[in-house]
Parts: sequence; C-alpha cells; structure tokens
Amino acid sequence: MLLETGQRAKAAAKILALTPTPAKNAALLALADALDSARAGIIAANTRDVDEGRANGLSEALIDRLLLNDARLEALCADLRHLATLPDPVGTHYDETVLPNGLRLRKQRVPLGVLGVIYESRPNVTLDVAGLALKTGNAAILRGGKETIHSNRALVQVIRQTLEACSLPADAIQFIDSPDRALITELLKLHEYIDIIIPRGGAKLHAFCRENSQIPVITGGIGICHLFVDESADLEKSLPVLYNAKVQRPSVCNALDTVLVHQDIAARILPRIVEHLSPAGVTFRADPAAGFHLTNFDSSLVHTAGPDDFDTEWLSLVLGLKVVSGLDEAIAHIAAHSTGHSDGILTENNDHAARFISEVDSAAVYVNASTRFTDGSQFGLGAEVAVSTQRLHARGPMGLPELTTYKWVAEGEYHVRA
Amino acid sequence: MLLETGQRAKAAAKILALTPTPAKNAALLALADALDSARAGIIAANTRDVDEGRANGLSEALIDRLLLNDARLEALCADLRHLATLPDPVGTHYDETVLPNGLRLRKQRVPLGVLGVIYESRPNVTLDVAGLALKTGNAAILRGGKETIHSNRALVQVIRQTLEACSLPADAIQFIDSPDRALITELLKLHEYIDIIIPRGGAKLHAFCRENSQIPVITGGIGICHLFVDESADLEKSLPVLYNAKVQRPSVCNALDTVLVHQDIAARILPRIVEHLSPAGVTFRADPAAGFHLTNFDSSLVHTAGPDDFDTEWLSLVLGLKVVSGLDEAIAHIAAHSTGHSDGILTENNDHAARFISEVDSAAVYVNASTRFTDGSQFGLGAEVAVSTQRLHARGPMGLPELTTYKWVAEGEYHVRA
Repeated sequence: MLLETGQRAKAAAKILALTPTPAKNAALLALADALDSARAGIIAANTRDVDEGRANGLSEALIDRLLLNDARLEALCADLRHLATLPDPVGTHYDETVLPNGLRLRKQRVPLGVLGVIYESRPNVTLDVAGLALKTGNAAILRGGKETIHSNRALVQVIRQTLEACSLPADAIQFIDSPDRALITELLKLHEYIDIIIPRGGAKLHAFCRENSQIPVITGGIGICHLFVDESADLEKSLPVLYNAKVQRPSVCNALDTVLVHQDIAARILPRIVEHLSPAGVTFRADPAAGFHLTNFDSSLVHTAGPDDFDTEWLSLVLGLKVVSGLDEAIAHIAAHSTGHSDGILTENNDHAARFISEVDSAAVYVNASTRFTDGSQFGLGAEVAVSTQRLHARGPMGLPELTTYKWVAEGEYHVRA
Repeated sequence: MLLETGQRAKAAAKILALTPTPAKNAALLALADALDSARAGIIAANTRDVDEGRANGLSEALIDRLLLNDARLEALCADLRHLATLPDPVGTHYDETVLPNGLRLRKQRVPLGVLGVIYESRPNVTLDVAGLALKTGNAAILRGGKETIHSNRALVQVIRQTLEACSLPADAIQFIDSPDRALITELLKLHEYIDIIIPRGGAKLHAFCRENSQIPVITGGIGICHLFVDESADLEKSLPVLYNAKVQRPSVCNALDTVLVHQDIAARILPRIVEHLSPAGVTFRADPAAGFHLTNFDSSLVHTAGPDDFDTEWLSLVLGLKVVSGLDEAIAHIAAHSTGHSDGILTENNDHAARFISEVDSAAVYVNASTRFTDGSQFGLGAEVAVSTQRLHARGPMGLPELTTYKWVAEGEYHVRA
C-alpha cells in the first residue's frame, strides 16, 4: 500500500534535488504565508484533536504537546522564514584536490533523497520536518501520532498546496493518513525508496525502528545526562551550572539526570545542591553515601535511590545524587549509565578535564558548562534535525548539512588508470 | 553464543580507542614481522583450504581468490607497513569555533567502536580489516568465508598473539571460527556491542545484512558502471578510456559495464569500439540500434542484448552497447540501470558535462575519465575500507577517517544556558 507513496516520493526527490536555492527559499516563505492565511482552519482541526484527546483521557501534558494556537503557529512560521535565510548546503564543494595525474577531484553535497520520519503527537514536527526537507532538497514521508491526525492532515494540505503553487512536486511531502501501526512496519521495509529513517520519540519507538527497519535509522534524543563535580571544582560557580542543567527545561533530553560528586567535597557541596535546587521544585534520589550527608533534609525531598534510578531519564524535576571516589569512578559510572548524549565535568584540574574529554565517549562532552547546550541553535547550526546518539553519519545535534550526503566528482582529460 | 564475543570486543575497543598512535603503528609493524616469521605455517594452513576447495569442486577462479603464497603474503605485509605511515585520524579536531557566549566548541574524531565484517573466501580481507581496525582504534569481529577457515584461523592467531605481545587486548580482533550461518544472523542483532556492519561480498550478502541487521550496514561494492560517449566527444581519445575502463581489470566493481553512445556518432564510433576492445577478448551485448551498426562483426563477438543484460554487473570481459538519442536519454538510462557506483560522460560540451555531474547521482561521477579511478588509493586516501554505494555516513571510497566518528567537545567557564 505504501509502495506507491515511496515511488512518488523518490520521483519528487529527484526534482527537488535539482531545484535551485532561491526557488526552495521562495517556497519556504510561501509556506509561512500560506500557514498564516490558513490559520483558522488549522486551529479548528487542532481543536478537534484536542477535544478527542481530552475525551480519550489524554493527560494535560500530552494535550499541551499537541496544542497549536496563534502564538505557536506564528513561531513555527517564523522558523520557516528563518530557515529561508540559512545557507543551503546542497551543491557546495569541499575536499577539492588535483591528483598527481591531473584528475580534478572534489566532493559535492547532494540531498540524502527521501526521509522517513516517524514521530509522536507533536504537530510542530510536521512543519519542522517539511521545512528542513524542503530546504535541503529532500522529499519526506511523515508518520505522526494518531492523536494529531486532524492537525497533520490540515498542515500537510497547506504544505502540498504551497508546493504546487510554487511549481514544486506536492509529493515531496507525503503523510501517512492512517493510524494503522502496520504501515510503520511497511514503511521501514521500503529501502528502495527511502534513504533514512528518523524516529522522533521515546526509546520504544527507536527500538521498534532498529528491529524492523531495512533502512538506516538515526537513533537519538534520549539522554541520561551526568555532571561530575570534581574535587577541585569551584563550588560557588558549580551550583548555578547544576541548577541550569536540571531546572532550565527539565522535560528535554539534555537536561541533567545525575550529579556525581567527588567524595572529598561531598559533605560540603551536597547540602548546598539540595538547598540551591529544591526551591525550584527539584527532588533528589541519593545513593547511600550521598544520603549520609543529607540526613538533615526531609525524606520527601531526598529519597534513597532505587535500583533503576541511575538508569532513568527523568524528564522532570528529579535529580540523582551519587558520591564517587574520584575521576575514575565517575568515568566508569558514566560509561555504565549514560545514553551517550551529554555528559560533563566541573573542575579546575586541566589534567582531569583532558582525561574526561578523552575517556567519556558521549555525543557531547562538556567541561565547566551546563549540559543544556546540546542543541542545534545553541551550537550555532541554525536549525536542528535531531540529536543523534548513534555513531554513524552524524552525532549530536544535526544541522542542515547532516541531511545531505556527497558525491565524488572527478574531471579529467580522457584520463586512464595506469 | 556470540554475546560474550561482542562484550569482549566492546571492552577491547575502549582500550584501543585510548591507545596512542605510536603504539598502534608499532603493533602494525610487529604484525607484519610476525606474519613474515609465521609464513610457513600460514601457507600450510592455506594449502589445506586450497586442497579442500579443489576436493569440493571450487572453480579455479575461486581457488585463486583464496590462495596465499609468498608473494601475496609479502604484499599484505607491505600494506601493513604502509598503513603504519599514514596519518591517524583519531584525536584530530575540526570545526573549531568559539560561540558568542564564549563556549569553545569543536569536533574531535573518535573510533567508531566495534566493526562487524562479513566477507567471502578471501583471506587477504582478514589482514586488511585487522590492520585498518587497529590503525583507527576500532575492534573488529570477523566472519570470513568457510572455504578459508584454516587460513583465517592461522592469520587470526598471529594477529592476536601480536596484539598481546604489544600489550594490546587480543580481543580487539576476534574471529567467528565456525561455518554456521546462524551465527551471522546472531551477529547482526548485537547492536549493543557492534557499531557498524561492513559486508564485503555480493548482492545477496548485502541484502541479507540489510534485512536482518539491527546495526547500521554499509552496503556497496556492486557496480553497474556506465560511460556515455556524447556527440561532441573526441572519438580517438575516447577509445583508450573505454578500453581502460573495461579491460584494465574487468573483475572489479568499478569496471565498465555499459557504453551509451549518442545516436549521431553511433555509426562512426561503434565499429571502432568493437575493433579496439575485441583483441583484448571483449565480447559485446548490443541493443538493436547499436547492433544495426555492427552487422559486419561475427555474432559470436557482438550478441544481441537480452532483457537483463543492462542490469548485469559483468565482472568479466563483456560490454553492453546502447544507442541513446542524447544526454537526456543517457541520464535516464543511468538512473534506471546504474547501481550508483561509478558513471561518466565523455564530452567536449561543458554544459553537458555540468548537467551530467548535477543530474547523475552516483557515488563517483566522471567527466572525461575512466571509471576505474573509484578506489581509495587512486583517490589519494592512502587506504580503503570499502566502496560505499549507500548514502549515509560515507559514499564512494572510504578511507581511514570513515572508520571514525566524532564527539562534540565544549569547554566553558561554568557556562549556563540563558
């Protein structure tokens, strides 16, 4: 059933790959305008999703995630207009060289082709992905959560009408307009037509894609993140970093999950951490050695850590606390419990910083900084597709170039191999 | 059964990732020396494979592929010694920047981790992969063809003894010492321990890996390669290019499979191609329009092309010939029949060259050159891991850096996100 979807996407991708940058940017601006004009209809469709969600007993947190209102739509349109101003990676050359035999060699960036994007009930992802795909000359097949099907249907209609109005193939953005999960399995087998699968959701979705896909999958976006407060760290400067990493936006993947504290400063810093973060609503899961220094606090604030607590991505105002004997134990704990997303050290010891950078193998490794910087916009990438925690193709925040690949171009004078 | 193999490989990879370049190079040189010393035993083991292969009716071409003799072993040792002289990508920095907030950001190359390499009965691959993995700080789990099991056992023993003698973990190179195919399926599921699967073999092996792997697979090495002789091409200069692309080494993936000829020069060039290439033993599969110009040749030399002939990777001295109406039909034929490995145009028309480069989406696109250059050593990469025809991570010849990934390193002064 999806075979034709794949074929049409591949045909559209071929056209999009050859579409000049100004035409792609014009389409992005036209899309922002069209969304502005269609705002009432989109919000009406979204209201149906919200009403059905409430009727089906969705939590208010999930309702909030799927909600579109004027302000959110305006922000999404602003993102599309900003995307139009960013440099287009497609067509750029690099690694140019002339070989000893005179053959002129270079790499030239080209789109990946067709993106398959599977995501939860967040209609903003529909526009994000459509914009990023269009900017980089890729086609995309979207499969959003069933709780936002009315919103997605309305958004994709505007996207496809805009593409047609801009003389671009509407099939560059297609949408699986069915909640049938069997279609996801079918999508994951279309390796002849889809070049990359990007799941945006939780660990179960990532595992499902990995287990069922015949197409390369970019997994990521799941972060059990650590900061190690070394013996030499400036404690007064460390507290705001811990606060920022945990509290600034606790629901995201680069928020702090566990603080590791050097045993020699545990007595001094642990009570300060609890005092500094608890007014923001943070509660704590302390290992026995950390709890030993926190007996003055109420047990509703400082809990004893359970067996799975250091393997939990909290996504909320919960923070693990653990005492370690030093850098070695900190690195070993991170190796055992991190998801390889974002981990850092707070230290004044350059040797320890260097060892931490070299030995902690996470997508982003920090020295004296909050983990909250692991983000395309914070890293200056302009736009972000996903945060990869796998090792192939791209790692960490993925910008526009990571939605491209390259071809080798070799130009000669009737060159033959000796 | 392979779980422990994976766990040991991952543990070894952690050590290898932190091993300094001089220690890795010393181990490569020690391995070359050890192979020299163990030559008699290796050749004896290989002789067992050859004898069993002959007894089992292997073709002489396959026997030749699995044969190790003094000269071949010497060449393999020379490759290892050369590898020791190449720059180590691990630890190099790039994309260094200071963000407006003062956070110092860079990418730092790190090994991929554990390579899973599945290959046919070519014992040279055992040494190639072991050397490349060691150089780039990766561990590897090898699964070679069952026809070379005695040779591989002997080679891997030398490799592991050398690693130990160099105080490196022997488990960095492991070998699945069983012909049981079920172990391949098991290997492909070990996503917690293996970071990349590199199949080196035919289309069936690649498909099997794609269908059964939970680990990203680098597919490649299969080339249905084209050269389009445009109307404006210099015919006298074109003939040696066609000859080189077809004849210089017909058994490899970047050898020429199909020549597309512009209809306006078909009458002139087609007989010249047959005259120029047939003395080397080339026979031809001509479409009717090409055959029309070749009626003077014996039908044992110029066959009429069958329905699958333009979708066949010949790997032998067979060459397809087809007349096209011009650049558009040439590009369309390549899009329909190429495996996306290496395709080229011979032309004096710059606009046609530019359109061909832009519209033909193969790993390597050539203007006025033989397709035979698609090769790590020819492209100046020093060593080659594989030739990728898939789109993620790496495309075309993969050198040492393509066996690495990167991590983001951010260094600050107790930076917090605003």
